[in-house]
Amino acid sequence: MTITLEPIGIVRSCYPEKFGVPRQPGLIKSAKAVIEFFPPYSNPECFIGLDGFSHIWVTFQFHKNLTQGWKPRVRPPRLGGNKSLGVFATRATFRPNGLGLSAVRLASLITRDGETCLEIEGGDFVDGTPVIDIKPYVAYTDSLEATSGFAKESPQPRLPVIMEAEAESFLCSHSERYPDLKTLIIETISLDPRPQYKGADDSKVYGLALFDLNIKWQVVDHMARVIEISKSA
Amino acid sequence: MTITLEPIGIVRSCYPEKFGVPRQPGLIKSAKAVIEFFPPYSNPECFIGLDGFSHIWVTFQFHKNLTQGWKPRVRPPRLGGNKSLGVFATRATFRPNGLGLSAVRLASLITRDGETCLEIEGGDFVDGTPVIDIKPYVAYTDSLEATSGFAKESPQPRLPVIMEAEAESFLCSHSERYPDLKTLIIETISLDPRPQYKGADDSKVYGLALFDLNIKWQVVDHMARVIEISKSA
Repeated sequence: MTITLEPIGIVRSCYPEKFGVPRQPGLIKSAKAVIEFFPPYSNPECFIGLDGFSHIWVTFQFHKNLTQGWKPRVRPPRLGGNKSLGVFATRATFRPNGLGLSAVRLASLITRDGETCLEIEGGDFVDGTPVIDIKPYVAYTDSLEATSGFAKESPQPRLPVIMEAEAESFLCSHSERYPDLKTLIIETISLDPRPQYKGADDSKVYGLALFDLNIKWQVVDHMARVIEISKSA
Repeated sequence: MTITLEPIGIVRSCYPEKFGVPRQPGLIKSAKAVIEFFPPYSNPECFIGLDGFSHIWVTFQFHKNLTQGWKPRVRPPRLGGNKSLGVFATRATFRPNGLGLSAVRLASLITRDGETCLEIEGGDFVDGTPVIDIKPYVAYTDSLEATSGFAKESPQPRLPVIMEAEAESFLCSHSERYPDLKTLIIETISLDPRPQYKGADDSKVYGLALFDLNIKWQVVDHMARVIEISKSA
């Protein structure tokens, strides 16, 4: 028996690649995104009453992982990548059926050309993520006092981030086009998106893609330095 | 573009029919259920570490509704069935892609013939529900202070329930086979599963199916009277 679904929409987010996407929703408030719906799901009638809810559940497909399948055990990044757990004990993206689930803040409902879009905050979505379902977050049934195994506390920002002169100059001259870019860069890099197996002494220059930009940065003396911001090729 | 999924398991619950299933998870603690997984998802390795979590998310298919499709607007039972809202502003079962999402308490992991099952409490599943995914409930990212539109408070039990002599007699003589049946009957009926459009004077005799039993009950003078309990034909 198989179940056939059809995406109801797509997420337009600031993260064109997986690298840099926060590992859970809610970690980066400045990570704004828009969910665009496909007809007939974009019909404004489908959303009547949703504006009374501050948060929504987004069920989506981990579309970047489809070809890699799943394994019974995975190594969660928050355990340093060196302890393996069962796939159903984690939120790992490489999982049977490849569905993700995130609670995000609903900033606003907008209508463009008669079709509804949702502006959301705190998402952990790669740009182009297919959306399977939207549900209102209902606090009395979704907000629980629960024991959460290995994931008891929210990951904390751990890397101080400074802008070098060239990066700062780009931010100044592009503040209208990318109004909250500096905050977004700092919040994204401070969570340290580098692979967990890299030691603290990793001084590689990384490229972080945000919107149509490439942000070059490097960790030196336990501090992230943003070296350059440029348009992606 | 379509997405093809395969159920990873099935819910074995006390509710063989939709009538009586609580309208949200967590409302009926005595509604215990077991999730049985299909190979290869039943491999105990897939669940290593899950015992550290008190609750899990179950993504499932509303398999009883597949032929009826969806509509842009629905009438939530908790609004008395006479106010319509957009389908994405509700948890209605008649929705695009027909997926449900419930947080339930994880009572225990058990292994039968080398295959893992999960015992859960507080579910809102019809027996035979196909399971698409299991994720750990992670409090720091799932438990939010949120505003919840028309669903601000948990539905409260509103019908007092009493057992007539014949029902009480059945409970006494079958207490080994169905140990928590009385609590389950009372908790289920007290939430008033009758159609919302029925007036308070509705004195129809209803049949509630639990396990392989049929429970006949009736509301008289704002009180539910359990008339008879018998094996289903």
